[in-house]
Amino acid sequence: MRVKHKPGSIVVLCGGLGGSRFVDALRLAAGDEQVTALVNVGDDVEILGLHVSPDLDTVLYTLAGLLDEERGWGVSYETYGALEMAERLGGESWFTLGDRDLGLHLVRTGLMRAGRPLSEVTRHLCERLAVRVRLLPASDDPVRTVVETPAGELPFQTWFVGRGHADPVTGLRYEGAEAARPAPGVVEALGAADLVFLAPSNPFTSVLPILAVPGIPEALTAKHVVAVSPLVGGRALRGPLAEMMTSLGHEPGPRGIAELYGDLAGELVVDPADAGSVPGALVAPIVMVDPAVREEVGRAVLEAVS
Amino acid sequence: MRVKHKPGSIVVLCGGLGGSRFVDALRLAAGDEQVTALVNVGDDVEILGLHVSPDLDTVLYTLAGLLDEERGWGVSYETYGALEMAERLGGESWFTLGDRDLGLHLVRTGLMRAGRPLSEVTRHLCERLAVRVRLLPASDDPVRTVVETPAGELPFQTWFVGRGHADPVTGLRYEGAEAARPAPGVVEALGAADLVFLAPSNPFTSVLPILAVPGIPEALTAKHVVAVSPLVGGRALRGPLAEMMTSLGHEPGPRGIAELYGDLAGELVVDPADAGSVPGALVAPIVMVDPAVREEVGRAVLEAVS
Repeated sequence: MRVKHKPGSIVVLCGGLGGSRFVDALRLAAGDEQVTALVNVGDDVEILGLHVSPDLDTVLYTLAGLLDEERGWGVSYETYGALEMAERLGGESWFTLGDRDLGLHLVRTGLMRAGRPLSEVTRHLCERLAVRVRLLPASDDPVRTVVETPAGELPFQTWFVGRGHADPVTGLRYEGAEAARPAPGVVEALGAADLVFLAPSNPFTSVLPILAVPGIPEALTAKHVVAVSPLVGGRALRGPLAEMMTSLGHEPGPRGIAELYGDLAGELVVDPADAGSVPGALVAPIVMVDPAVREEVGRAVLEAVS
Repeated sequence: MRVKHKPGSIVVLCGGLGGSRFVDALRLAAGDEQVTALVNVGDDVEILGLHVSPDLDTVLYTLAGLLDEERGWGVSYETYGALEMAERLGGESWFTLGDRDLGLHLVRTGLMRAGRPLSEVTRHLCERLAVRVRLLPASDDPVRTVVETPAGELPFQTWFVGRGHADPVTGLRYEGAEAARPAPGVVEALGAADLVFLAPSNPFTSVLPILAVPGIPEALTAKHVVAVSPLVGGRALRGPLAEMMTSLGHEPGPRGIAELYGDLAGELVVDPADAGSVPGALVAPIVMVDPAVREEVGRAVLEAVS
């Protein structure tokens, strides 16, 4: 049975890798125009004077077929001439930016310096790369995830990339979120949605920074919200989520995820490996590292929630 | 006979390719510390939000052994991933910037945005690339060559690169020059010099924009100034100088160069191919496209003027 979805009827709150793969799965199953991705900007960072939006870029590259799927970030067949030269000249080189990737950051930064908001620039980039899924940043205003650790507060990318997420996380805050407004179209997209997913992204660093923007959680209250577990068999497929849940006092498994999202999500989808771990949870295969299985995962999840 | 020169005793006013090769020739013959290059900034341009100094870069890359000698600009073994992506995304792509080259522009632009003047940034880049010849931009203030053509006034790079120097040149002006000050160290370097060369660069687009900065011509008045002809056998080795001289009403040969510089230069060095073309001109081989002949050219020129 294939469920028919109206254009824009599915909205996904997501971060980078896990989120982008889930967005890819849904658009393959339901159609590009049916899906809106509402993407975290809490990871955004300025590198070498350029505005980098790692989560937006991972979603964009995935949908455009440009992602280095093996590595899970950046562009495939990438070169690193610019960063190598910058390093040689004493420039910032701790955050790996490939040459093709830099081309995008140069264009985005130029448009933003000319006064165009991130949401408008993102639409432009989607058009140029023929990406028809709608990508919306959570906000055009700066929201920055700050990680609290025994070594002190660290900007997200300093903690994640700069220090290899080695510092235990004792808390998080989303700087700027209180004053941020949802990007144009965000509240309208949520209002028009039949189905809202919390993607299998890290809740603390991908989903909650979106929900920290006033107006976004309010737009979810009357909606059919489904969380997809970012943990399978008690482990994140990639990244430090399980360790982070433990250090923050949550159970590192689907039950911890269910408790964390609480009333925000009416349903939780877990992988068959975790069937029975959360009473009432829906079960569907949610491992979609391989692009070839994504359409099937998208269909299975949509069928499970319909 | 080898003439001994004191550190900093030779100053060269120069532009990009011809100038960089002559600076290379002199430092190979006299020693790196003996030579100061006073470099044109009239060609500087902002591309993709980055400050590009084509003449400074050509001198820097030549002296660091990084120049693509075949092409005469940019870095050897270069890739173009960033520019290709920028073009795909609708960004500025008319001015070719390779990836390694972009790495330098990113570092320079970052330092300048942080408030460091071009001269200080140039010193930093030289240190990082172990270039011991002293490179000084003519000015830290913006001086921009504007080319007058039948199609109207064009910024230099628009005329040169953007339109392939197809428009006849009817005049030139150096925007900002009147208000510009010599970069720190320029007047002092000229004051300490025993010998000042006007490099075999295009006078209109490389040497005169340096001399348009108030204070620089004044510092030359009591000096031994030697112009090296940028024309050999009536032709520039590269670039549109001969055509430009004709359209501006000058004779396209060493005699035209001698008239153009007038009292500015006490002596003119011409190639053996032009021996006898200008009464009193010194003769030395000045074709130095091949890096292997540069030291010999440097020695011959220094001996001719000593």
